[in-house]
Amino acid sequence: MQTQGFLSHRAHAGRAALVGLCLAIAALPAVARAADALPSWNDGASKARIVAFVQSVTDPTSKQYVPPAERIAVFDNDGALWTEQPMYFQLAFILDRVKALAPQHPEWRTQEPFKSALAGDMAGVAKAGEHGLLEMMAATHAGMTTDEFRKIVADWLATARHPRFKRPYTELTYAPMRELLAYLRANGFKTFIVSGGGVEFMRVFSERVYGVPPEQVIGSSIRTKYEVRDGKPVIVRLPEVEFIDDKAGKPVGINRYIGRRPILAAGNSDGDFEMLEYTTSAPGPRLGLIVHHDDREREYAYDRESHVGRLDRGLDEAAQRGWLVVSMKDDWRTVYADPVR
Amino acid sequence: MQTQGFLSHRAHAGRAALVGLCLAIAALPAVARAADALPSWNDGASKARIVAFVQSVTDPTSKQYVPPAERIAVFDNDGALWTEQPMYFQLAFILDRVKALAPQHPEWRTQEPFKSALAGDMAGVAKAGEHGLLEMMAATHAGMTTDEFRKIVADWLATARHPRFKRPYTELTYAPMRELLAYLRANGFKTFIVSGGGVEFMRVFSERVYGVPPEQVIGSSIRTKYEVRDGKPVIVRLPEVEFIDDKAGKPVGINRYIGRRPILAAGNSDGDFEMLEYTTSAPGPRLGLIVHHDDREREYAYDRESHVGRLDRGLDEAAQRGWLVVSMKDDWRTVYADPVR
Repeated sequence: MQTQGFLSHRAHAGRAALVGLCLAIAALPAVARAADALPSWNDGASKARIVAFVQSVTDPTSKQYVPPAERIAVFDNDGALWTEQPMYFQLAFILDRVKALAPQHPEWRTQEPFKSALAGDMAGVAKAGEHGLLEMMAATHAGMTTDEFRKIVADWLATARHPRFKRPYTELTYAPMRELLAYLRANGFKTFIVSGGGVEFMRVFSERVYGVPPEQVIGSSIRTKYEVRDGKPVIVRLPEVEFIDDKAGKPVGINRYIGRRPILAAGNSDGDFEMLEYTTSAPGPRLGLIVHHDDREREYAYDRESHVGRLDRGLDEAAQRGWLVVSMKDDWRTVYADPVR
Repeated sequence: MQTQGFLSHRAHAGRAALVGLCLAIAALPAVARAADALPSWNDGASKARIVAFVQSVTDPTSKQYVPPAERIAVFDNDGALWTEQPMYFQLAFILDRVKALAPQHPEWRTQEPFKSALAGDMAGVAKAGEHGLLEMMAATHAGMTTDEFRKIVADWLATARHPRFKRPYTELTYAPMRELLAYLRANGFKTFIVSGGGVEFMRVFSERVYGVPPEQVIGSSIRTKYEVRDGKPVIVRLPEVEFIDDKAGKPVGINRYIGRRPILAAGNSDGDFEMLEYTTSAPGPRLGLIVHHDDREREYAYDRESHVGRLDRGLDEAAQRGWLVVSMKDDWRTVYADPVR
């Protein structure tokens, strides 16, 4: 009985402690709890502003309250959710595909931009400009079914490595931004990717890596066609650009796919300018966020002079427009997420 | 004390009864509970097949189990979720808009198809064919911002009445189909509309009437352009067709917007054939459903010979393809939902 009494007492004390703990947690200021959702962010003005925004739009007693259905958040991908240096990862994919397909295309040995691509001559590739890029996309992204394309992308992602970090590209996503996506979703937001990247390319990893399902990924696209092959319906990819989801195309894409104006937009380059402008230039609470790449040690440092992810007008106008410029160097405790398999 | 004791006893008995009730409900066969979600459906083979399908894909112990993220259901709108006779409701909208705008267009008095539209001569409108329809769409659906267009549609929906039923068009939605949408969502499905109708037209009422948010509405579209007018960003509608979401366009639209194959598709005409084919011709559990309009009393009766919502190949091949043909007359206890304001 003594033992049992002792155990009972211990059990009772345990329960009481648990209840006390629950009460204590419930009594904590909401700010402190919310901040825990963003452990890769350093405490400071940027983190505080994000948390304050989310709290104000989710608090039913706040004048800034926004019903869940209208809590739409849009995120650029390249440079905003994952690294985009030394080149867009999808360009690395295209170049690898050109190499893989070269044996079936002997004519590429003398034909630009394929010749430069095969020689690893990036200046030559750049010289071919947008037209050259579209030619390589047509040669590598079209002619197969969507299912076949997805498998090609998945296989590439599984084996390709970043030249500097020697990690799979999907491991070069930003921990603070993945936390932000999850934090927003936990607060009733619907999170979308709105990127200049190919929509079918991103959909291969968006759900696994970002928790964003394919139907919430908006990107550039090529035309497709419905066909029944041997009794099996397939969607065939055609070598013809349908939509470029960049710059002024981003608000157009948002309207096309979502059909309502977001209340939060995050980007990093002037390609996101119109998306941020569209999102933040309307009544009601709004948050525009720019990831500023100023961390040469842990990632890269670039803005006004960069070819990839150039940020110029956005830096000039962020203050007057009330956009939050996040310093990768100062605001982020961690840059890269733990490996996502 | 007596009273208090009595109350305590009553309260205790009440609690016990409640617990008993909960246990009883939990013990009920899942079928019985699920069936309650579809009260506008008559008990019978159609309802039983729908319920059995939903149960099999949501039961984690079933071989047919489908994870929630893959529970994508697509619904046609005209004739599948609301009435489409004597003409598509959006055509009624177009004709009303032509009349409303006629004072600013004196040339329409002599110019087809506007002349016929203004005279209410539907044979004349039909004679102008698809080209005439596109001309009227360009004249009535473009040139304004998306916000302005939404307001025009909302105002029209608030005042227009169906010629036979004398009710607002949004009250001519099918109760059984609205229940099916809600039942699927309650079972972890994500429900989409995939319709030949204009996407911006449907988005005005889809959330209120069907519980389908704008970002889950796929439809035909015209091109749009981003503009900053007096410092305010707007999306402007252009008189140029971008996408026709009908027939083989439906699987293309599904791939473009959703990026994965649905497991359930519901339609009513041969315009839905490819969507049903695409949805049901793949491994795993799949349900294709056709609403058959055979109820002249309560709605309309039409199929192979109809200009609007013609259903011919679908009827021929439904049995061999395993598609469920729902008889409006026999399977539906109620046709129209209670008014939705």
